[in-house]
Amino acid sequence: MKSDIILLGHGSGGKLSHQLLDDLIVPTLSGLGLRDQNDSAVLTLPRGRLAFTTDSYVVDPIFFPGGNIGDLAVNGTVNDLAMAGARPLSLSVGLILEEGLAVPDLKSILESMRAAAERAGVTIVTGDTKVVPRGKADKIFINVSGVGVLEHDYDIRGSGALVGDRILINGTIGDHGMAVLAGREGLELESDIRSDSAALNHLVADLVRELGSGLHVLRDPTRGGVATTLKEIALQSQVEITLNEPNLPVNEPVAGACAILGLDPLFVANEGKLLAFVAPDAGDRALEVMRNHPEGEKAAIIGEVTGEADGRVRQRTAIGGLRAIEMLAGEQLPRIC
Amino acid sequence: MKSDIILLGHGSGGKLSHQLLDDLIVPTLSGLGLRDQNDSAVLTLPRGRLAFTTDSYVVDPIFFPGGNIGDLAVNGTVNDLAMAGARPLSLSVGLILEEGLAVPDLKSILESMRAAAERAGVTIVTGDTKVVPRGKADKIFINVSGVGVLEHDYDIRGSGALVGDRILINGTIGDHGMAVLAGREGLELESDIRSDSAALNHLVADLVRELGSGLHVLRDPTRGGVATTLKEIALQSQVEITLNEPNLPVNEPVAGACAILGLDPLFVANEGKLLAFVAPDAGDRALEVMRNHPEGEKAAIIGEVTGEADGRVRQRTAIGGLRAIEMLAGEQLPRIC
Repeated sequence: MKSDIILLGHGSGGKLSHQLLDDLIVPTLSGLGLRDQNDSAVLTLPRGRLAFTTDSYVVDPIFFPGGNIGDLAVNGTVNDLAMAGARPLSLSVGLILEEGLAVPDLKSILESMRAAAERAGVTIVTGDTKVVPRGKADKIFINVSGVGVLEHDYDIRGSGALVGDRILINGTIGDHGMAVLAGREGLELESDIRSDSAALNHLVADLVRELGSGLHVLRDPTRGGVATTLKEIALQSQVEITLNEPNLPVNEPVAGACAILGLDPLFVANEGKLLAFVAPDAGDRALEVMRNHPEGEKAAIIGEVTGEADGRVRQRTAIGGLRAIEMLAGEQLPRIC
Repeated sequence: MKSDIILLGHGSGGKLSHQLLDDLIVPTLSGLGLRDQNDSAVLTLPRGRLAFTTDSYVVDPIFFPGGNIGDLAVNGTVNDLAMAGARPLSLSVGLILEEGLAVPDLKSILESMRAAAERAGVTIVTGDTKVVPRGKADKIFINVSGVGVLEHDYDIRGSGALVGDRILINGTIGDHGMAVLAGREGLELESDIRSDSAALNHLVADLVRELGSGLHVLRDPTRGGVATTLKEIALQSQVEITLNEPNLPVNEPVAGACAILGLDPLFVANEGKLLAFVAPDAGDRALEVMRNHPEGEKAAIIGEVTGEADGRVRQRTAIGGLRAIEMLAGEQLPRIC
């Protein structure tokens, strides 16, 4: 790279674009040679239904404790594929760069994406890069879309919750949202809060294999947090969910920071967590499978599907009361992912 | 929709996000019901290799003569799939909205996306919406990723050009770039310049069926124009390309506007054009197939692969001279797509 910042010409499609792609983006993300660069990637996939998903990432700041926008983007899309019970295989990367972005920052983000893809066992196979003038974007926005394959016949989906299902989470809540907040200028939060950003596909593969048709719903509680995600599932499945507050794992510094700022960790975003709804007799086995994974050491059974209903979510509090949980109203923490 | 502009809360993942999705985005783009909304779409595809692509669209202005950012995005990604010889099937839509975007503009863009998808015979199956504060994006950026299937065994790719190949284009060049320029404030260009934005997958399906293994390369000359795209192919295939300037179809108003602004239409972006490299004996048939399509009425044979070489592109001018063509240097027209 001859320039240490991104220029408008890097988005022209011409000579500068090719330099940016050939010198930095393609070798870092995929290692694909010039001869093999085409408008589409052509893939030969294993047999099975295809899972297909997309997510754009606009997190601010782009570097935060525990990660950056690059590994967040890869993990997030890998997780969306995994939540369908799919084995994630291939990702696309769409970059929107603001003129003036520091090339070393871009390089560092791309390297994190490659590393995250390798950890998840997926490859980045196609991409696109646009550049907009200063002040028309904020440093970098990343879209990662992905494809994966379902190598089983189970239907794992938001509308699949059944009365009696046990509800599990694979660890502590609110870490990502509070880490991003801690990374913002001017906020002095506990320095030991780190994003939980992680790929959950290996954990999901074990759950699918061990629980089979006993695994009903998987969803990652990102924006809106655990509360909003449970409300979505309750509405889709037309059931009532009862959450057991004392069982919710929360890291001490996150709980403390939430208390100071008046936030409820139940509504704060996670990026390495999943909610699993499993048949009553599969609850203990699911917990065991989760706890055998580094991403599931603090897994817990946090609630139950307590009836058929019009999408109600209730929380049993530490002192035994019941309060209704609604979706996040308004905007709590903008640009958290 | 209760608000007539986009609010930051529409990106929260909570109640406002769900309203935006349920009241506007999902019904307009896909018609999918609430119960069926999941992190990934699950698809059962016909057998064959999979094509997978992504493109982000940041065009300015978002409405221009002949189209808007929405149909441009659908057509562009459909075309990227078609250029691999694939039948495009399913698209994802990733929206990045600037706080304050007018909801009627968003609605109009989404309706254009749905209509463009229907014309191309594809469905929008999954999506994502983010909102960033005022001044952190420019109205709307759209990523469209797509999957398609290759129902044949031919390899159509940039490295596939062979000596003797005839080079065809399906119509006039430079229309999209000049239409976007005409749409920008303060420029008074010919009012009858319109973007050529169109889906080319039906045309490509006919070319694949009629030419079979005689079809070597397909690529859409978008950013950087025909010149840059030919240079890419020459480099990937390690050949010399000779272009016959008098054969290049250019609409009169586009040629006039280019002359006034000192632009060469050979470097101006197209969004409904493709370059096809075909075996020598398939040239006339390819021309016939193209001219049978509304998107190919002005198709022409514009050049030939004239030798093995290190990626040289030459243009035979109207008076018989030869001049070298390089990739677009610098930035000619920022944010053209």
